[in-house]
Amino acid sequence: MIFFFFTSPLFISLSVSSVKNSFKPKEPCKHIVLYYHDTLFNGTDAANATSAAATNATKLGDFKFGMLVVFDDPMTKDNHLLSRPVARAQGFYFYDMKSTYTAWFAYTLIFNSTEHKGTLNIMGADLMMMETRDFSVVGGTGDFFMARGIATIHTDTFQGAYYFRLKMDIKLYECY
Amino acid sequence: MIFFFFTSPLFISLSVSSVKNSFKPKEPCKHIVLYYHDTLFNGTDAANATSAAATNATKLGDFKFGMLVVFDDPMTKDNHLLSRPVARAQGFYFYDMKSTYTAWFAYTLIFNSTEHKGTLNIMGADLMMMETRDFSVVGGTGDFFMARGIATIHTDTFQGAYYFRLKMDIKLYECY
Amino acid sequence: MIFFFFTSPLFISLSVSSVKNSFKPKEPCKHIVLYYHDTLFNGTDAANATSAAATNATKLGDFKFGMLVVFDDPMTKDNHLLSRPVARAQGFYFYDMKSTYTAWFAYTLIFNSTEHKGTLNIMGADLMMMETRDFSVVGGTGDFFMARGIATIHTDTFQGAYYFRLKMDIKLYECY
Repeated sequence: MIFFFFTSPLFISLSVSSVKNSFKPKEPCKHIVLYYHDTLFNGTDAANATSAAATNATKLGDFKFGMLVVFDDPMTKDNHLLSRPVARAQGFYFYDMKSTYTAWFAYTLIFNSTEHKGTLNIMGADLMMMETRDFSVVGGTGDFFMARGIATIHTDTFQGAYYFRLKMDIKLYECY
Repeated sequence: MIFFFFTSPLFISLSVSSVKNSFKPKEPCKHIVLYYHDTLFNGTDAANATSAAATNATKLGDFKFGMLVVFDDPMTKDNHLLSRPVARAQGFYFYDMKSTYTAWFAYTLIFNSTEHKGTLNIMGADLMMMETRDFSVVGGTGDFFMARGIATIHTDTFQGAYYFRLKMDIKLYECY
Repeated sequence: MIFFFFTSPLFISLSVSSVKNSFKPKEPCKHIVLYYHDTLFNGTDAANATSAAATNATKLGDFKFGMLVVFDDPMTKDNHLLSRPVARAQGFYFYDMKSTYTAWFAYTLIFNSTEHKGTLNIMGADLMMMETRDFSVVGGTGDFFMARGIATIHTDTFQGAYYFRLKMDIKLYECY
């Protein structure tokens, strides 16, 4: 780049004019790995539950199509449910296929620790049949002001209908 | 641009320092046109239906205010429902005016073909009284890594309460 | 910047190559302050109401966890409900904590005036216990083509369960 600068002013000029269209910083400017724990309310365990179904499943298929779950779930650095949460995930998911389990998520990660203060806003399709799948980090606030990136999701475990855990590997590619 | 470079270094310098604020690449880096087919479950056609109402309409007005529909809809290159889908649209819409039909959408386009692998995340207001209306493409993954753009929507047809088709003209203005 | 340009071409060259990762224009390119008025349908005031609950609250806690409200709310320049709206906010929120009131919002601001035509798409966590909280402006259309920014929310007032007003201080940091 520096070499070109001295030998080819034209090249630099073209770089500038296409910077938004073609620039490719595929190295993340920030990397955070967290575990998401969803404990669905079964009607009696309000003390432990951190999510609840706001709608019933429809009769379209046998995979809870249309069941929408609102959550306020703890995020931890390791995969232990009882580890100290370093963030909360607040948002919702709903099931959306009639032939298998898939879901769609939109939520905010809320950080309020000495390490991070701020939020990340995330949305995407949870194609559970895939080993990993990617959500979009579409914005951020506070320490994550205007951030964008990718959150790669992996199902770490699920236990029946009332607990599952996702590993979320969050890479920010736009940081201010 | 090149002309200015040689005659006015100052101009270039200013361009660089305001690139995020004022740069205007209004030419898309990627352009995709697809048709979205929504076949709403009527309670008995589970084999054909690809969407279902997760909530009932409220009693606010006569235009289904508050009815929320979850969908897993096929996307085709032409406007024939039975053409081979090149993507799925997974997400939801709900009706949100008491005086006419309008809706609000958030969804993911999931591509898994030889042509494209990856997703686009989209949201926006569907002001059906307008000939066309624009949604925001707020993120992408895979082949569409970190993409942003605009999806222009046009109602291609609707047939009663259980089928409608939208043309989605998707222009990406940020590609990596 | 200009000074450096003449004395240090190297500096400019490096600026260009890291622009997406490290550039920090913390001055907004556009600033709009609006008030959001939410008048929840009580079952009989359809003429005045501009939002309605699409789901009932769950039994998880005593703070309406899971109640999802769809809205088509007026946005005004001052904090008077009956001032002429300069935009509509169409979208939804739901309550999402079992121990206090918090909500999660996603919506579109629709401008259709001589001053502005276009939309802004916004999402984020409404942590009502905070004096202010930030949502992400994740995209825009029309006059706000491809915009991004932050909407800072402040509860201006609430009156019982059926009316509340938010001040939304919207700063766009990416404008085209």
